[in-house]
Amino acid sequence: MRNIKMTIEYDGGRYLGWQRLSDSDKTIQGKIENVLSAMTGDKIEIIGSGRTDAGAHANGQVANFKTIATMEFPAMLDHLNRYLPRDIIVKKLEEVPERFHARYNANGKKYSYYVWNNPVPSVFERNFSYDYPGELDIAKMNEACNKLVGKHDFIGFSSLKKSKKSTVRTIDEIKIQKEGDLLHFTFTGEGFLYKMIRIIMGTIIEIGLGMTEPEAIDAIFKSGIRSDAGMTVPSQGLFLDEVYYD
Amino acid sequence: MRNIKMTIEYDGGRYLGWQRLSDSDKTIQGKIENVLSAMTGDKIEIIGSGRTDAGAHANGQVANFKTIATMEFPAMLDHLNRYLPRDIIVKKLEEVPERFHARYNANGKKYSYYVWNNPVPSVFERNFSYDYPGELDIAKMNEACNKLVGKHDFIGFSSLKKSKKSTVRTIDEIKIQKEGDLLHFTFTGEGFLYKMIRIIMGTIIEIGLGMTEPEAIDAIFKSGIRSDAGMTVPSQGLFLDEVYYD
Repeated sequence: MRNIKMTIEYDGGRYLGWQRLSDSDKTIQGKIENVLSAMTGDKIEIIGSGRTDAGAHANGQVANFKTIATMEFPAMLDHLNRYLPRDIIVKKLEEVPERFHARYNANGKKYSYYVWNNPVPSVFERNFSYDYPGELDIAKMNEACNKLVGKHDFIGFSSLKKSKKSTVRTIDEIKIQKEGDLLHFTFTGEGFLYKMIRIIMGTIIEIGLGMTEPEAIDAIFKSGIRSDAGMTVPSQGLFLDEVYYD
Repeated sequence: MRNIKMTIEYDGGRYLGWQRLSDSDKTIQGKIENVLSAMTGDKIEIIGSGRTDAGAHANGQVANFKTIATMEFPAMLDHLNRYLPRDIIVKKLEEVPERFHARYNANGKKYSYYVWNNPVPSVFERNFSYDYPGELDIAKMNEACNKLVGKHDFIGFSSLKKSKKSTVRTIDEIKIQKEGDLLHFTFTGEGFLYKMIRIIMGTIIEIGLGMTEPEAIDAIFKSGIRSDAGMTVPSQGLFLDEVYYD
């Protein structure tokens, strides 16, 4: 049995997210599984490194699947990209050991979030960023980011209910770069809770605007209450850039 | 009478080009005129700096129109961008002297053409570049560009028939930059003939591939025959970046 690792790029704008639902045609996983199943003649299930939200994008999502198909990689890649919709591309295929599992073996991820910080929107960026024209204090936002980096219980920055599963995560780095009118936020860490990056972004933006101070971060860690944090920013600015494996 | 200069950005993918046709809904000019006419209550005609091809894009198309409307610019800009489709944006409005004419007064233009030079396409670039995976010799292409710069009769690089109108143009600069997997070609000059950049690009690509030598450029200038030049590359890689005025 071959175990095949895929690196996948998608514009998530038209989809209900990564994870297959009963209506497989509206998810990235569903689209890829359908093409793989038709290609191999077997019902293929793929294991993604994790879900991405409805409307969110990826430059480097990773998934794996097992197959007895003997097709070689160049032909398989051609076939996939010919039959996948234009907004999903498999960038790379690699043979991996049978025990490789795209979710269990992932030991880190990098995400980007883009804010278009100009009162006039951009035709080319508007589907891939959050239009936020307000004046943002980058120094204050960096201060907030420094407080977020490290090992913390991020329950207040997630839409999860209290549960037995740990909500402690470690963020290794948050970077803010100004690229013309785009503000590019990069998050690197071992893993992120459901909606965590979008809620962190909403909180950082409120701090950048001066609505609250960077110290608000400490208070949210302390209370663990979702409503103490900022809004959930739209998914269209979010990209899964990379998944790390040993 | 006010004379108003607009700077316009558009994703031309869904349109039949800049210039209004009877079916105004499929042209950029038509879309903008419809919104301006509804806004002012008068039938507004806009004058573009020049046409752009069906499927080509713009970061900085310029147009002007005359109106007796007294609406102020921030309100006008908001109104336009609220009612224009998501793939057309007016970036700037400026009051200009009554004699200003976006076409007659333009004394230079800058265009970009993008080639995606990787066998695996990109979801995010594929609508804004020409997917061309072949290996391209940049030094050879630069040699060809050096021959194209200057004042020449570009009839062989256009789809125009011989006519009394001059087909002599001056190209000030052609630059090739490698931006990751994208090759970014920039053309600056006083003006360009119909399809001239797309035919030049097709010719440069054939030279980059080694199908012909840079000297082919001299031969095309000499013969003036369209079929001696290369293919017309697709419009989706073409951007009108800037229009220059005194």
